[in-house]
Amino acid sequence: MKNICSLLPIKYPLIQAGMVWVSGGKLAAASANAGILGVIGAGSMKPELLEEHLNKALKLTNHPECLAVNVPLLYEKTREQLEISLRMGIRTFITSAGSPKNYTSWLKGEGAKVIHVVSSPEFAIKSEAAGCDAVIAEGFEAGGHNGREEITTLALIPQVVDSVKIPVIAAGGIGDGRAIAAVMCLGAQGAQLGTRFVATTESSAHQNFKQAIVNSTSSSTMLSMKKHIPVRLYKNKFFEEVKSLEDHCATKEELEKFLGHGRARRGMLEGDMDEGEIEIGQISGLIHDVPSVEVLVKRLIEEQRQCLPGGSFF
Amino acid sequence: MKNICSLLPIKYPLIQAGMVWVSGGKLAAASANAGILGVIGAGSMKPELLEEHLNKALKLTNHPECLAVNVPLLYEKTREQLEISLRMGIRTFITSAGSPKNYTSWLKGEGAKVIHVVSSPEFAIKSEAAGCDAVIAEGFEAGGHNGREEITTLALIPQVVDSVKIPVIAAGGIGDGRAIAAVMCLGAQGAQLGTRFVATTESSAHQNFKQAIVNSTSSSTMLSMKKHIPVRLYKNKFFEEVKSLEDHCATKEELEKFLGHGRARRGMLEGDMDEGEIEIGQISGLIHDVPSVEVLVKRLIEEQRQCLPGGSFF
Repeated sequence: MKNICSLLPIKYPLIQAGMVWVSGGKLAAASANAGILGVIGAGSMKPELLEEHLNKALKLTNHPECLAVNVPLLYEKTREQLEISLRMGIRTFITSAGSPKNYTSWLKGEGAKVIHVVSSPEFAIKSEAAGCDAVIAEGFEAGGHNGREEITTLALIPQVVDSVKIPVIAAGGIGDGRAIAAVMCLGAQGAQLGTRFVATTESSAHQNFKQAIVNSTSSSTMLSMKKHIPVRLYKNKFFEEVKSLEDHCATKEELEKFLGHGRARRGMLEGDMDEGEIEIGQISGLIHDVPSVEVLVKRLIEEQRQCLPGGSFF
Repeated sequence: MKNICSLLPIKYPLIQAGMVWVSGGKLAAASANAGILGVIGAGSMKPELLEEHLNKALKLTNHPECLAVNVPLLYEKTREQLEISLRMGIRTFITSAGSPKNYTSWLKGEGAKVIHVVSSPEFAIKSEAAGCDAVIAEGFEAGGHNGREEITTLALIPQVVDSVKIPVIAAGGIGDGRAIAAVMCLGAQGAQLGTRFVATTESSAHQNFKQAIVNSTSSSTMLSMKKHIPVRLYKNKFFEEVKSLEDHCATKEELEKFLGHGRARRGMLEGDMDEGEIEIGQISGLIHDVPSVEVLVKRLIEEQRQCLPGGSFF
């Protein structure tokens, strides 16, 4: 079976997702040390902070080649984030939330691999045309920002696999080795896990946030703010207030006024579980512990092996 | 690997879903003949019509033991539907949309197997407590009526499997053998396919409806009518009108007035693709042909085998 270990210098075809406020240098280094792709989420970082986290990650791992940066392509500092990362030796980029046309050729010219995050087969075809090396196809069940078409991972992956020749990595709803095996059956060549890595000792999520994941049920999240930018949220007081505004047909402007600034930082980093915005995936209901990344990765690999009649995908 | 072939008298652990206006005696018999569970969808049938379809199915198959009836538990004629089915020899029932407490003990006393459709681990636990023999766990991507919590199949199946001891059958988003293998990896002991069987020669869906599935993309459906009863619809004129009402915060009463009666029959059976209600799953984008049930079932089995490193789940 082909998998992304032939594209990226990693031992197992798994990616620890880059996530705002959660995946800094410490988490990325732990993931790289465990043999998977460790991703720093630059979305919430000013260029100086990104540099700090890159320095931290490089100090904590002997596998710098297994580090990557996730860069949403919609901030004014995108170019600066990418330049710093290149200068620090990063050669794997995950890009999202913007056109893959803008930076892919340049990054590839610098010797980097570029993987774009997509939510539909149509966006995957555009990413392949832009020269991306692979796509991460992320389903409706994923935490955080989400596609408008609400295509679930199970429906999305085979349709993306059938649409492009480049490797497809599955994301959204993957919390254990059973789901890794499942998405590989669908034709994915790897899996990206987000929520599962929030609940690890090395993530920089606040302890309250980690505990909320452990306490979650299958119905603890909901896709929200569809008139704004769709985002999957943990159902806390903040969510209920957003929902109430939406149920009363609030305009986009009224919603933006309510949101204000800094809600995500307040929730995910500072642990205000009432007023903060908590972005998290539907699979949180499956997660019952906060292991180290090393323990988690070993467990994921063993789990995917056990649920296959003939052994393992990798 | 354990699968539902040890519970039900079928050769392959697959169920052709019972669907309103689509799965009559002809489709159910073809499915039974192909070695899977053939289900008559009684939801749209008066008792006399159900009897007619049962008679037809019994004439068309030598495997009456592979026939089942899907009975939504919310109609006034539910008891009558169940009594007719028992009298005609049916011993497998799929129940949905109501409490499994109401009829399960009685049906089991008559020697029948009862499988309840659920959309969350909580409902699965209740079904097990009510004595059901298995549950069908159906995700957000499924066509037609849908759970309010919007849990996708990938997130739902492992959480249901971990919550009950009875077998779990996966439904929602399963359009080919890759997805069958995937849900078996998640711990399901079988798979129910709906949309895929609408687009077969033996289904009683109107030709226009079958062609719409063949022409669909991954974004041709959307979960709708969340304030009423959530239902996944094909995006046609009827859908756009419902959406417009909802975008303008129509009340439940205004929505019901617009819906009127007979919209589903008009769309799915009579082929009015503008004014009719077309219930269909997100996986329609993956479906490109209208084979016979016999050809389809053989293909599904071969596909699931090919995507597993070690062979087959069954």
